[in-house]
This record gives sequence, structure tokens and C-alpha cells, in this order.
Amino acid sequence: MRTEFEFIQHIKKKYNLKHIGDDCAVLPKDAKTDMLFTADMLVEDVDFRVDWTTPELLGNRALSVSLSDIAAMGGEPRWAMLSIGVPENIWNSGFVEQFYEGVDLVVSTFRAYGMEGLIGGDISRTPDKLVIDSVVCGEVPKGTAVLRSGAKPGDSIYVTGEVGGAAAGLRLLHDGRRCPDSNGPRFDALLLRQLNPFPHIADGVFLRRKKIASAMIDLSDGISSDLAHICSQSGVGAVVYAESLPVHRKLKRIFRSTDEQIEMALNGGEDFELLFTADDKKIPPDALAGFYRIGEATANVGIIELIREGKSAILEPKGYRHF
Amino acid sequence: MRTEFEFIQHIKKKYNLKHIGDDCAVLPKDAKTDMLFTADMLVEDVDFRVDWTTPELLGNRALSVSLSDIAAMGGEPRWAMLSIGVPENIWNSGFVEQFYEGVDLVVSTFRAYGMEGLIGGDISRTPDKLVIDSVVCGEVPKGTAVLRSGAKPGDSIYVTGEVGGAAAGLRLLHDGRRCPDSNGPRFDALLLRQLNPFPHIADGVFLRRKKIASAMIDLSDGISSDLAHICSQSGVGAVVYAESLPVHRKLKRIFRSTDEQIEMALNGGEDFELLFTADDKKIPPDALAGFYRIGEATANVGIIELIREGKSAILEPKGYRHF
Repeated sequence: MRTEFEFIQHIKKKYNLKHIGDDCAVLPKDAKTDMLFTADMLVEDVDFRVDWTTPELLGNRALSVSLSDIAAMGGEPRWAMLSIGVPENIWNSGFVEQFYEGVDLVVSTFRAYGMEGLIGGDISRTPDKLVIDSVVCGEVPKGTAVLRSGAKPGDSIYVTGEVGGAAAGLRLLHDGRRCPDSNGPRFDALLLRQLNPFPHIADGVFLRRKKIASAMIDLSDGISSDLAHICSQSGVGAVVYAESLPVHRKLKRIFRSTDEQIEMALNGGEDFELLFTADDKKIPPDALAGFYRIGEATANVGIIELIREGKSAILEPKGYRHF
Repeated sequence: MRTEFEFIQHIKKKYNLKHIGDDCAVLPKDAKTDMLFTADMLVEDVDFRVDWTTPELLGNRALSVSLSDIAAMGGEPRWAMLSIGVPENIWNSGFVEQFYEGVDLVVSTFRAYGMEGLIGGDISRTPDKLVIDSVVCGEVPKGTAVLRSGAKPGDSIYVTGEVGGAAAGLRLLHDGRRCPDSNGPRFDALLLRQLNPFPHIADGVFLRRKKIASAMIDLSDGISSDLAHICSQSGVGAVVYAESLPVHRKLKRIFRSTDEQIEMALNGGEDFELLFTADDKKIPPDALAGFYRIGEATANVGIIELIREGKSAILEPKGYRHF
């Protein structure tokens, strides 16, 4: 009997679905440009809970997770098609209008990168759960999309920002905290890290233009899983230094156990930071300022080692995305 | 209080969603080519029932309804992204594999028109209902997409094939008939007209290439509704002759009441034939052979008249898509 994971992998591979190979499909547009396409389905009570968020944040999130896939290949966003299925009880509640206002806000945020807006989508009824499918098209100059497969042994491994915050936010939501939280901003920062992800288009474009990233992925499932994709596609292994992980500052103040911090940083999904590899001996150090070096790619194919307090252990992919 | 219909129209218009304006969004690709994009969401127990169909037919249908939007603009299909959300109870049942086999069959059918295949999509869990979002990209030579807005007073109105069959099939499904039916092919033809729609890519491409169609739409909601879209976008009225409607032959043999036949032909959705207008005085008659002339566009803006047995009545849009 196949596990659910094996089953999904089988179907995805056979029919060329997402995340087999890369974050987006790459198609030629014209002599100068490649198009990137990605689709993400978000389902109520699987990927989000209506009573944990707001319609605006949900619209924001739906578009942002797809934009993050564009960012992971160094793409500039061009347009989106959002389809939404809406249950009876929220038709006339203003939910759908507010949802699209959230979408619109993200569109505005990325206009400077060439985002033109929504070009279409479908709107449908559902029996009882909200469902959203977000398709985004981006562009890169021909042949320059940053793939998952370009890492070489000896490359350093970087992340673009702090990790574990979204997982901590999810934990707080499960514990009953809601945003805004009466205990103030230290909780809200983590809750919003989960509810209001930010796609790192600017970092992705920079890392592609400057030819810094040899391979790249967005952290949707967590470092342990997403780095495993890079290793498997690139045919390399990796070493990760626990002490180098940029654990989210607010997370450290609320979850005091170092074990817990490292667990969230490595296996927590949905931070939507970019993880990339770079041959940093060839790169001026100031180009890498602001990014966090967490390890390096090795020739030990398929093996990811975690070094913590001088001891080495195998790091198994344990990331998750589902609520 | 807005009705649900008004609400959807409001949201669709404000955020430029589908069916406001046309079947697909049209975007420039390069100096010679425009791209067409369409998205269709299908939801279990709203747009289909799992116990009325098979996984293969459902995969077929999901892709076909989007291809039909490409056909309605005269486009050739290029690729698709299908996202599917699947409930627990059918994960390991083979359903998803069979679903994608149905999708694959449609891809194969249209390879001759340039269909390359699935380039991606997402696969997700849902709490209890299946949901599918199908996004298709097509192409036309620049500036040649057939819009809904090109009809002129005096143009004839045509449909590419028999109508009412899908509505009759839906009625039979509600009455408990399933496919294959033990009473043989006269029921099956109607059931499959509902369960296994065929996108009229070849007709659409022909009508665009030969510059025959001045306006075009696919019959997803039914003649009364879809013709109203053409009239509203083109700024014309229309006359439809009840006796000229090509009522599906099998429908006539099973539903004997002429009233019922005309009702299904005018208001039954999901036949996915193309409805188009043409200035047939300028067109060689053999180019229109095989299509059915059902009326003409008039200068009586916004009014659609139905002529039956010599009497005229106003035809209100009554089409439907929902189960």
C-alpha cells in the first residue's frame, strides 16, 4: 500500500504536476523571454481556517503563495487568475469583496515589478467549504530562470530571512490566539507571519540578475523538505549548521526551548523565505549582505547532515504544509 | 438586497473575472500571436455528482469546459494547468489516476490543433468534496480572436450543432438513469451529452480563419442566456425562431412535449456547441453547411424575441449551469 505522500508524488510525476522538477513550469514566450506558470490550491480546513484569518488576509495569502513560486525562480510577476468557490453562508456577508480587496493589495505591492493585475478567474458555489485556486504568470529573460537543479558541491546555502516564524504563528493559532492579540505585537508578528506571507520577489530578481543563486526554492514546506528537493534535483548532499539558523526573533522570545526553536526553524513550513545556493567565493561579499548562510552543499549525494553542538545527525525531511 | 446573480456580476465586473466581456482573457504574446486564458472551477454537488459519472469522464469534462472557452474565441489550445482537491475517501481508490487519464485523453484528442499537454497544476486535500480548477491557454494570430461584441443588426445567428441534449441528460440523471443504461443507446447518448462534453475547437478555428463569425460564444448556460451576452456586448437585439432550433434528435424521441423540447433547447445549459453570428450575404453558402441558422440580430437593442407558430414573445435569459 502506498502512503499518501508516495501516491501524490506518483500522480504529480506521471502528469507533470507542480513541484516535480521546479516551482513553476517554464515556457518560451518569444525570442527574449520565458514565461513562468504556477498554480496553488488552498482549501478551507486543510490550508487555512476561516475563523483564524480575515477575508483580506486570505486574499493576500492566496496570491502571495503563488507569487512566492515566481520569486523562487527569479521571476517578475505579470498577471494572475484567481478562482474561488464560496459556500452559501458567506455569499452576502461581504467576504468575497474583502477577499478580492486583499488580492488587489498584493497586486499593487508588486506593480513596480511589472505585475499588471488579475486577468480573470472563475467564481463558483461550493456546498460548505471555501476553496481557492491561484494561477500566476511571471517572466524572466530567456534561459535565466533559477532552477532547483543548479547546486554544486562546495556551494554555500543561504536563506533570505528568518525562519520558523510561520510555524510558531500556527502553533499560537492552534493555542487559541488570534490577531490582533491583546498581548501586543510580539504575538501579532508571529500570527501574521503565518496569516500574511510575503513573497520575496525583490530578493529573487536580485539573486537571478546578479547571477548569485545557483539553485533556489521558496520555503513553503520547511528547510528540511525544501533543501531535500534542491539536493535531489541537483544531485548533491548538504550540511546545515543548527547554530547558523536565523530563528525568528519573536519566536525565540516566546518559545524558550532551543530544541523547539530548531524544530520550528527546520521543519516549519510557510515562511516563504527563499533558500538558495551560491558559489560565494566568486561573489563580492556585500552582494550577500542581509542573507543568512546556514550550511553548504556537499558531494555526499542525497544525505543532509545537521551539525549541532559539534555533533552530526542525519536531517530527515519533516516539513509540512497542512493545518 | 442584491440577488446572488447580481452579487456575482458585481464581483466579476469589479475584479475583471471571467465572462465579463468574453470567454477568455486576451493577452499579447509576441508580434504575431495573442494568448487566450480561461479558468473554470468545478465543484462536487454543485457542478457534478461523483455517483453520476466516472473519474475519466470527470477529467475529460474538467478540461473540455475550458477548451470550449478557447473554441468560442476561435483559438487553438496550447496547454493546461489542472488543480484538484480530493477528499480522504477517494485518495487511494484509483480515482485520481483515472481522473488524469480522462484529462490525458482530451489532450491527445487536440494534439493536432497544437495542444501540448498539462504543464502543471496543484494537488490538494479537501475535507469532503472534490473540487477542480482548470486553466487553459490557447493562441490566435494577433488581433483575430472572435469576441462577443462583433454582432451587427442583420447578421444571422447560427449554432454549430444540436441543442438541449445536455439538459435532457441532466433530467435523466435526476430521474435515476445512469450510463451505460440498460435501455440502450438512446438514453446513453443524452447522458453522455451531459457527462462528456466535446469542445468544438475545429469549428471555432474554421469560423475564425474563414472570417465567418462576427461574434461567438459557447453554449455553457443555454441559448437564452448566452445569446443575451452576445446582444449585450454587441449592442444589438435578436430574433430566434423556435421552429429552427436544432433540438437534439434523441431528446425528441424521449421527451415528446414540444414545449419541453423548446424549453430544453433554449434554456438548457452545457451543450458546449458554439453560437455565432455571421453576415451570411457575404459568405459562400457551402461554408455554412452543417451549421444551423436559428435567427438574426436586430437593431432592437437588448430585446430578444422568440417567434413560435407565428407569434412573438420576449425571450428572457433563463439558462442555468448548476445541478
